[in-house]
Amino acid sequence: MKIDDLCNAIKKTRCPICVGLDTSYEYLTDAYKSDSPTYSEISKSIYKYNCDIINAVKDIAPSVKVQVAYYEQYGYHGMKCFFDTMSYASDNGLIVIADVKRNDIGSTAKAYSTAYIVNSAADFITVNAYLGIDGIQPFLEDCEQTGKGIFALVKTSNPSGGQFQDLDVSGKKLYQVMADKVSEWGSGLVGDYGYSSVGAVVGATYPQQAQELRQRMNQTFFLVPGYGAQGAGADDIAVNFDKQGLGGVVNSSRGILLAYKKEMYSNVPGKAARQAVLDMKQDILAAFSRCGVEL
Amino acid sequence: MKIDDLCNAIKKTRCPICVGLDTSYEYLTDAYKSDSPTYSEISKSIYKYNCDIINAVKDIAPSVKVQVAYYEQYGYHGMKCFFDTMSYASDNGLIVIADVKRNDIGSTAKAYSTAYIVNSAADFITVNAYLGIDGIQPFLEDCEQTGKGIFALVKTSNPSGGQFQDLDVSGKKLYQVMADKVSEWGSGLVGDYGYSSVGAVVGATYPQQAQELRQRMNQTFFLVPGYGAQGAGADDIAVNFDKQGLGGVVNSSRGILLAYKKEMYSNVPGKAARQAVLDMKQDILAAFSRCGVEL
Repeated sequence: MKIDDLCNAIKKTRCPICVGLDTSYEYLTDAYKSDSPTYSEISKSIYKYNCDIINAVKDIAPSVKVQVAYYEQYGYHGMKCFFDTMSYASDNGLIVIADVKRNDIGSTAKAYSTAYIVNSAADFITVNAYLGIDGIQPFLEDCEQTGKGIFALVKTSNPSGGQFQDLDVSGKKLYQVMADKVSEWGSGLVGDYGYSSVGAVVGATYPQQAQELRQRMNQTFFLVPGYGAQGAGADDIAVNFDKQGLGGVVNSSRGILLAYKKEMYSNVPGKAARQAVLDMKQDILAAFSRCGVEL
Repeated sequence: MKIDDLCNAIKKTRCPICVGLDTSYEYLTDAYKSDSPTYSEISKSIYKYNCDIINAVKDIAPSVKVQVAYYEQYGYHGMKCFFDTMSYASDNGLIVIADVKRNDIGSTAKAYSTAYIVNSAADFITVNAYLGIDGIQPFLEDCEQTGKGIFALVKTSNPSGGQFQDLDVSGKKLYQVMADKVSEWGSGLVGDYGYSSVGAVVGATYPQQAQELRQRMNQTFFLVPGYGAQGAGADDIAVNFDKQGLGGVVNSSRGILLAYKKEMYSNVPGKAARQAVLDMKQDILAAFSRCGVEL
């Protein structure tokens, strides 16, 4: 099961990080850019950049998260780059999370599941469960068949995430209702480390709720956005983990992709990205040790 | 504004229908299929099928809805077919709804909006607002700039739609809270017919809730799935409309795409699709006339 592969990779690297390939064309240095920035050329440039980042981090990070929105901007050329990036990361031994937040019903959800769980190099994808179990069941069936997994949105990292997610629903918050459903959906797909193929997206920017969710969903692995650019620090994210330092993987995108812009790092994107991952790892491990977590 | 163009096209055709191009490869007759069904060949076959359906209905239907999941199954070749289908429909005078249900935050939502509102031939796209206004604002800004629009999921047509959407939230249902937010978000983008560029997805399979939402959201145009294959009839959908027969557009996918399989229709897909649209139109207009709606 891919959830066990993810746990193994995190233990091996001691690095519960996923490198977020939210690669906007504007992030690229001039060396990568084309003189004629058509969608085709832009997509090739982004692919080259992604490969260099992947090569620079593949021995120290366990996983990448590829955010499809940045690729869809460039039409089908962008989608080729998206699929090729996932394949390249997978071929280089990284666990691949496709951040697609897909959601639909019945035969349409099945088509999404075919697109990403069955037909792509992704090991996990993100989904939005506002449509209920009808929209999740096709993914669960394919996860069971393939060993892959999903992360369902539970408590997102953005300021207005609470606009619906924090609403009071007969004594619970809506995100807690969602959390309980996600736990239930995943209860039949638990791997060797005690975590399910059905994970949850839990934003680092709400540490109190994350801590409460960690207790509430003890078989659910968390994909944790919000570190760095969105404002959460290592102590905020430590609450997402169990005492062995498992149970979560923390995403950073801009902090790694744009590290080359910082004075403290190399101006070569790959080199800078590698150092940014190592620094983020130290930051997280230090926070772990402050709260008695041993990875 | 595209919402006015949609109203005009519905009045002109007296046909509040969108033809759902949820074109699964299995739906195609042998004449369209390739001997070597690679993703590239499959995508070309689907494109040809879509063009024939579009040609057959373009003078009698106002709009098409293209469901991206069916295209994503075939990788970037499928996405080329998706974008090309939307362009072909648009070039042939149809209003195009991209059914993508995209959702994310901040710069990622902005990237989705660039992908579909700014860069594609779609006039409208569907979105999922579980992440709150942060995820909607980038679309609103581009809708204001371009005159295009969005449909946000409010009450979906599937059996488990109510699992979250019908939860009680301090005296309201969650879908009612969502409805009120969608109305608010759209209040600054109202066109000549009194309808906003910010519409709602309201399933035909819950006519009581649809009727209530029609009252509650009087400036909100409804995209109505669920007619036909999902079980809703014309009387169920009539409640989504105002007394002039505006305020909604009803989707049918399989009922039109697979009409050629029915005894009563031609076995030529385009011919059958055209007659299925005409029959659906008569069915809806008859229901309109039973409840005093005059389109």
